[in-house]
Amino acid sequence: METLVIAGGRVLRPDGRVTEDDVLVDADAGTIEAVGPDLEGDRRLDAEGGVVMPGLVNAHTHVAMTLLRGYADDKELDAWLQEDIWPAEAELTPEDVEVGAELGLLEMIRSGTTAFADMYFEMDRVAAAVDRAGLRARLGHGVVTVGKEDADATADVEESIAVATELDGAADGRIRTMFAPHSLTTVGEAYLREGLELAAAHDLPVHLHANETSDEVAPIVEERGERPIEYAEDAGALGPGNFFAHGVHVDDAEIARLAATDTAVVHCPASNMKLASGLAPVQRLRDAGVTVGIGTDGAASNNDLDLFDEMRDAAMVGKVAADDPAAVPAEAVVEMATAGGAAATGLPGGRVEAGAAADLIVVDFDAPHLTPTHDVVSHLAYAARGSDVRHTVCDGAVLMENRDVLTLDAEAVQDRAAEHAADLVARVDAAK
Amino acid sequence: METLVIAGGRVLRPDGRVTEDDVLVDADAGTIEAVGPDLEGDRRLDAEGGVVMPGLVNAHTHVAMTLLRGYADDKELDAWLQEDIWPAEAELTPEDVEVGAELGLLEMIRSGTTAFADMYFEMDRVAAAVDRAGLRARLGHGVVTVGKEDADATADVEESIAVATELDGAADGRIRTMFAPHSLTTVGEAYLREGLELAAAHDLPVHLHANETSDEVAPIVEERGERPIEYAEDAGALGPGNFFAHGVHVDDAEIARLAATDTAVVHCPASNMKLASGLAPVQRLRDAGVTVGIGTDGAASNNDLDLFDEMRDAAMVGKVAADDPAAVPAEAVVEMATAGGAAATGLPGGRVEAGAAADLIVVDFDAPHLTPTHDVVSHLAYAARGSDVRHTVCDGAVLMENRDVLTLDAEAVQDRAAEHAADLVARVDAAK
Repeated sequence: METLVIAGGRVLRPDGRVTEDDVLVDADAGTIEAVGPDLEGDRRLDAEGGVVMPGLVNAHTHVAMTLLRGYADDKELDAWLQEDIWPAEAELTPEDVEVGAELGLLEMIRSGTTAFADMYFEMDRVAAAVDRAGLRARLGHGVVTVGKEDADATADVEESIAVATELDGAADGRIRTMFAPHSLTTVGEAYLREGLELAAAHDLPVHLHANETSDEVAPIVEERGERPIEYAEDAGALGPGNFFAHGVHVDDAEIARLAATDTAVVHCPASNMKLASGLAPVQRLRDAGVTVGIGTDGAASNNDLDLFDEMRDAAMVGKVAADDPAAVPAEAVVEMATAGGAAATGLPGGRVEAGAAADLIVVDFDAPHLTPTHDVVSHLAYAARGSDVRHTVCDGAVLMENRDVLTLDAEAVQDRAAEHAADLVARVDAAK
Repeated sequence: METLVIAGGRVLRPDGRVTEDDVLVDADAGTIEAVGPDLEGDRRLDAEGGVVMPGLVNAHTHVAMTLLRGYADDKELDAWLQEDIWPAEAELTPEDVEVGAELGLLEMIRSGTTAFADMYFEMDRVAAAVDRAGLRARLGHGVVTVGKEDADATADVEESIAVATELDGAADGRIRTMFAPHSLTTVGEAYLREGLELAAAHDLPVHLHANETSDEVAPIVEERGERPIEYAEDAGALGPGNFFAHGVHVDDAEIARLAATDTAVVHCPASNMKLASGLAPVQRLRDAGVTVGIGTDGAASNNDLDLFDEMRDAAMVGKVAADDPAAVPAEAVVEMATAGGAAATGLPGGRVEAGAAADLIVVDFDAPHLTPTHDVVSHLAYAARGSDVRHTVCDGAVLMENRDVLTLDAEAVQDRAAEHAADLVARVDAAK
């Protein structure tokens, strides 16, 4: 057994305590062997002055969209999608997706994310990048059927199922998959039901966008006389393992259905603010017992993939939404970004304890903005940022040591991404 | 003339253009000599791969409150103040204030802030720290008269005026001052009027908290039958040079009075969210022609002093408040954090152009989260963070080079702050 010890720091334990301990990792098995004082291993990561915590889980993103970071901002959602994002996505090649995914993975490793859920297309390319980068992921081919002929719509559903069955277990088991209908308004009911049946037959979890904007809720209520989550339940989309992104405009009855069916919600506070979608009722979701994770959404509506930013945003938005400064406290956002995200996505990790997956980060607290340290958890939620992450470990492997990413050539990844982004813009402009 | 050239990067110009140019600084005069290609100077700061922009202006803070960073979070405002913040502030010694201020200055230099406005007490200690650190500041002794005997209340007003007249022009002119009544509810009308008359006689600008929470607006409306900004105008608190923090709960008539009198507003989005005060109508303020700056408020309600965080928050909050993703775009937040803040506080800086104060920073764009670069201004608003700042220059002096702070001993400042914070907590606990 090859072992790794993360030594000399403090450890954020699952019960919220912070103890001065080392963490011993079985690097072969990818699991935590022990948490305790004076542990020794074959390889040592220095955690002095730092805090060892679970790797962060970005529970909803479209990682290849890093190529469109800052490409179009500050526009009405419809205009942004129709004039900028969709025309650009129409020009994305499979190689663009892989290059953009690599850039996003590099950014996530550098900001302490060890696992993520991704809905996009060309997912074999995303999987190849995940394999190299060393993170853990739940991947799904996003299905859109509106505006498509029946044959194309059916093919898209079938592709999502095929991609999920083919990629499941890839990258030494670090990749898991899902059926990913884009949303309740962009996938027709017949296709949604067909896909959900296939997903159930293949034991695949389901991930979709739900109740993101009021504009998306209104037509469902108007056409069907029921709220989106009621429709989703009728169609068979709720249930353990399934997780819905956004959940901004959900009423109490919908929250109760999500809780009763053990369907998780992924809160994306920055994207919801940037697109003026609204403020998700995170405290009400948590009070009802809904599992809540946190996601950055794509880089085009954020514009970064830094879960530390997102924790801070989640605490802030949760308070404003509840009109209560005591709502969504620091420990809640740290939970949502770690164990909550792991539970929502059904991926291992989220806890620093013996037997858990060795998905860990060390956050360097030797910085003016983290001084003094009255409360470690408060700092993780409100003051730390992705650039404070010193080491990133996933599945027992060291992905970043002393801010050097070991699995990817950072300079080459950035250069390739810049080139591909420039070519993409040139193609989009030429197509106009 | 000793000169400094910031060379090899791109420059954000006052009109929003980004050009490939060098910046030549007269280090003795503290001014920008020229912006153009191929400039040479006695000393060179490398801006390759970076963007030269105006130093950021933190237009409302209480810098010594860094000692209380993370000391108490996630509580109702009243309980937070009465149970935690005020008891701790009652124990703060003059030396604590200086140590806390130094920590805040270190954090601001490292995150690209070159100028700030500060309302607190023991301001000679804050001024001493500013003198050493090299930033620019507008300082004011905060006056609170509620609950005080007449003699004490009058003394507090007189102290604010005396501190302002004594410190004005200190630190080679980098320190300017102001009369700083805490707010329209914590200073009695007679004392407010007395102080404003003295301020006018001494040609001092006025800075106060206004319309921060609905709880603060209601009693003014109830007692006086007029809105807070109307009361402030009656009392003589509006006018050019004066700037009010927060402005969350302002109606259209109040906005019109602020605009008509050239009274600036400092938007503090993170603090307003963290304390669930509300979302300031920044787009409406800007549309009405009000000068708007951005502030972090104290570290206890933020919990950092990073203006990059605050720019992102301002763009996000502005959109949600206006229910419009096109509101408060990237260029608006960059303007508010630079020229807007300089105008609000009446301090030099905020523009990279010949003749302007040499208050500049270089933001390193060679990072995955700033790749690709479709739009420099978008990145500054949405994706950059304080840790991306490579160099910080204020008044022609280099305060930070390649992330090494040259004017303060970072390790000693952090150690002293941690010690003073621990002693403070021990004293507060003992006093309970």
